[in-house]
Amino acid sequence: MAVVRTDVTGGIMTLTLDRPEKLNAFTIEMMQELIDAFDVADKDDAVRAVVVTGAGRAFCAGADISGGTSGFVDVENRKLGEATVRDGGGLLTLRIFDSLKPVIAAVNGAAVGVGATMQLPMDMRLASEDAKFGFVFGRRGIVPEACSSWFLPRVVGISKAMEWSATGRIFDAQEALSAGLVRSVHKPADLLGAAQELAEEISANSAPVSVALTRQMMWRMLGADHPMEAHRVDSLAIELRTASDDAAEGVRSFMEKRPAVFPDRVSTDLPDIFPDWSAPKWQ
Amino acid sequence: MAVVRTDVTGGIMTLTLDRPEKLNAFTIEMMQELIDAFDVADKDDAVRAVVVTGAGRAFCAGADISGGTSGFVDVENRKLGEATVRDGGGLLTLRIFDSLKPVIAAVNGAAVGVGATMQLPMDMRLASEDAKFGFVFGRRGIVPEACSSWFLPRVVGISKAMEWSATGRIFDAQEALSAGLVRSVHKPADLLGAAQELAEEISANSAPVSVALTRQMMWRMLGADHPMEAHRVDSLAIELRTASDDAAEGVRSFMEKRPAVFPDRVSTDLPDIFPDWSAPKWQ
Amino acid sequence: MAVVRTDVTGGIMTLTLDRPEKLNAFTIEMMQELIDAFDVADKDDAVRAVVVTGAGRAFCAGADISGGTSGFVDVENRKLGEATVRDGGGLLTLRIFDSLKPVIAAVNGAAVGVGATMQLPMDMRLASEDAKFGFVFGRRGIVPEACSSWFLPRVVGISKAMEWSATGRIFDAQEALSAGLVRSVHKPADLLGAAQELAEEISANSAPVSVALTRQMMWRMLGADHPMEAHRVDSLAIELRTASDDAAEGVRSFMEKRPAVFPDRVSTDLPDIFPDWSAPKWQ
Repeated sequence: MAVVRTDVTGGIMTLTLDRPEKLNAFTIEMMQELIDAFDVADKDDAVRAVVVTGAGRAFCAGADISGGTSGFVDVENRKLGEATVRDGGGLLTLRIFDSLKPVIAAVNGAAVGVGATMQLPMDMRLASEDAKFGFVFGRRGIVPEACSSWFLPRVVGISKAMEWSATGRIFDAQEALSAGLVRSVHKPADLLGAAQELAEEISANSAPVSVALTRQMMWRMLGADHPMEAHRVDSLAIELRTASDDAAEGVRSFMEKRPAVFPDRVSTDLPDIFPDWSAPKWQ
Repeated sequence: MAVVRTDVTGGIMTLTLDRPEKLNAFTIEMMQELIDAFDVADKDDAVRAVVVTGAGRAFCAGADISGGTSGFVDVENRKLGEATVRDGGGLLTLRIFDSLKPVIAAVNGAAVGVGATMQLPMDMRLASEDAKFGFVFGRRGIVPEACSSWFLPRVVGISKAMEWSATGRIFDAQEALSAGLVRSVHKPADLLGAAQELAEEISANSAPVSVALTRQMMWRMLGADHPMEAHRVDSLAIELRTASDDAAEGVRSFMEKRPAVFPDRVSTDLPDIFPDWSAPKWQ
Repeated sequence: MAVVRTDVTGGIMTLTLDRPEKLNAFTIEMMQELIDAFDVADKDDAVRAVVVTGAGRAFCAGADISGGTSGFVDVENRKLGEATVRDGGGLLTLRIFDSLKPVIAAVNGAAVGVGATMQLPMDMRLASEDAKFGFVFGRRGIVPEACSSWFLPRVVGISKAMEWSATGRIFDAQEALSAGLVRSVHKPADLLGAAQELAEEISANSAPVSVALTRQMMWRMLGADHPMEAHRVDSLAIELRTASDDAAEGVRSFMEKRPAVFPDRVSTDLPDIFPDWSAPKWQ
């Protein structure tokens, strides 16, 4: 890939936004490479978690507007007959929303515009002391994108979401921490290690199929109207998974007080626990 | 009851999970006794609030898997023609969701698996300094149950819900407190008293019919798409309740600066403020 | 206006509830004057933000029940053929929900009943050290109104919403701050200045059309089932707004490191980015 560096080590795919001379400004090329990387991660059983970070001193300074405002939308990929160009940030966040592997942001520096909104469908966010955040869309005369009007109020609450989006303020890691945008703040040298350690805490302990199902269940139910929708899904999932080799190993290893070695694989053993569910169509 | 001890004193029904030698591990029998107890609480006007705690050193150590994984689902009660066995934890949390009396958890020790998820539809949670929590489903090769994919992100936010569920980590009362899973942490000897005091703060001050309606309104509106849905319900409720004897007494006692003595009873005076609402069906 | 004082200075409309001798108790007249003021604010391009506060020592002590409980509902305005009287607090909060200008509460003193619930659709809340809050409906024998069963759990979480509403407790600014009901607490003399400074941070930096669209997007998406709903809306909004004069000025001013002067006006340049959306009907 040209603008996203990919490394898979010890079960963790680390994606590094890699245009440091441009503060990793977001382009349609970067969007496509990230989407491709999440496709690879979902198919590759060797990948147990994904960590996203930036090369150099920024995480991602926003859409690349060196060529004007065209960096925001994927005009070239407008399909014939479509009324509207799809927002590039949204194509990415919808892809992350559907990820089968847990996703962790390691925010090493400035994360502005789409650099901030792309993080919202990630499961956990860690920040360096040097990180800065900004939902600056109002200051550029545009609007929040990447489905952030859906994600941001669910991550930090409607009041903080409105304050940050209406002011367009740049704020630091401490303000992000107290509002719950990030879970922890680290010295710059410790950040990536802490993110990878958290990824390892998942991969060392939890069954891959369990994690993939959990991720789908939690994110989809975030918009569901009634807990009965979860009951239908988790009843089926519990019935199928309690009969699995993973559950047998989970109980056996617990009884024997040893680490579990789960046999099932996401690529081949992921049951369809959402038989009545279909993703909403674009148009 | 055999595995849930029930005590009603001073308007508070205290339910004690009572298999201390098994760390109060959850069985279908325990599920049924809890559901029955909530049925009794709803019908009995002498019960103003429900407190749930555990006997001995644990709150509830999860599903009883001493007989394998069958403790998770109510296979015996599968109805003819049903495609899926209903998850036992979900049957319980859906029942608590519908409770007409406020429900307070007093988490005295380990609360793991369904011991953690059964608390989520309760209104408030207090923990002992000795409490431990774990959404350990991934470590057993299964998935979050008891509708926790719906409840947990609404109680603690999607980021913390995913972190706890993906890692399966066991965490202590302080971590539960800072994430908002519990409202307060207490010395072990003070826990049950603090929970009962909170229950008394409700029963000593608020009209029983008001509390029952409030509970239905808040929990149902948690999944509603637009505030207009609340406006339809609370307009009707306000019209009906301002004409009630309770409201007359509420205003009069406020003017006279004395405690109110509300005449209306949940068993006989609960109006239907959801004329257009029906609970989603199982299948 | 008779009971709401209106002042527009420097782009900020300050609305002061002005029945200090009655602790600014809420009446149908006050509801109507507030609704009218929000109508004016939406139409007047000189208004960039709205601040709501109270005259004297209270913010708003609740519905005026000096004439009994009729202060709660707008009986006179019941339309022919309507089954139910509409709750007056809800008419106000639904109007604020739709506001095109950001709304900031400066809670100078007691905010009880509708004095507390009317704040919930406001974007940000600041409190004086003297502020007190109370969701006291259960203590008066009635129920939470003003769509607060929808708003309150989304602002402070379901657990705190239930605790405050079931107990009816009066609580201070510090408890409001730790639960996230207010964003900051100020000395009484500094409160209004701090609220206006926050309003100025918005008006000095962000494009008016951007703020109006952002407000609609965030609040409406708070109830949406899936991020795809946001993707449809923000894709259209990004396409329309990146082609706007505001966006050109936003990029140019950023490049030139000078304050932006946005040409577009809410009264004439607000695009319809919700072509498929219609507000739910009352009945």
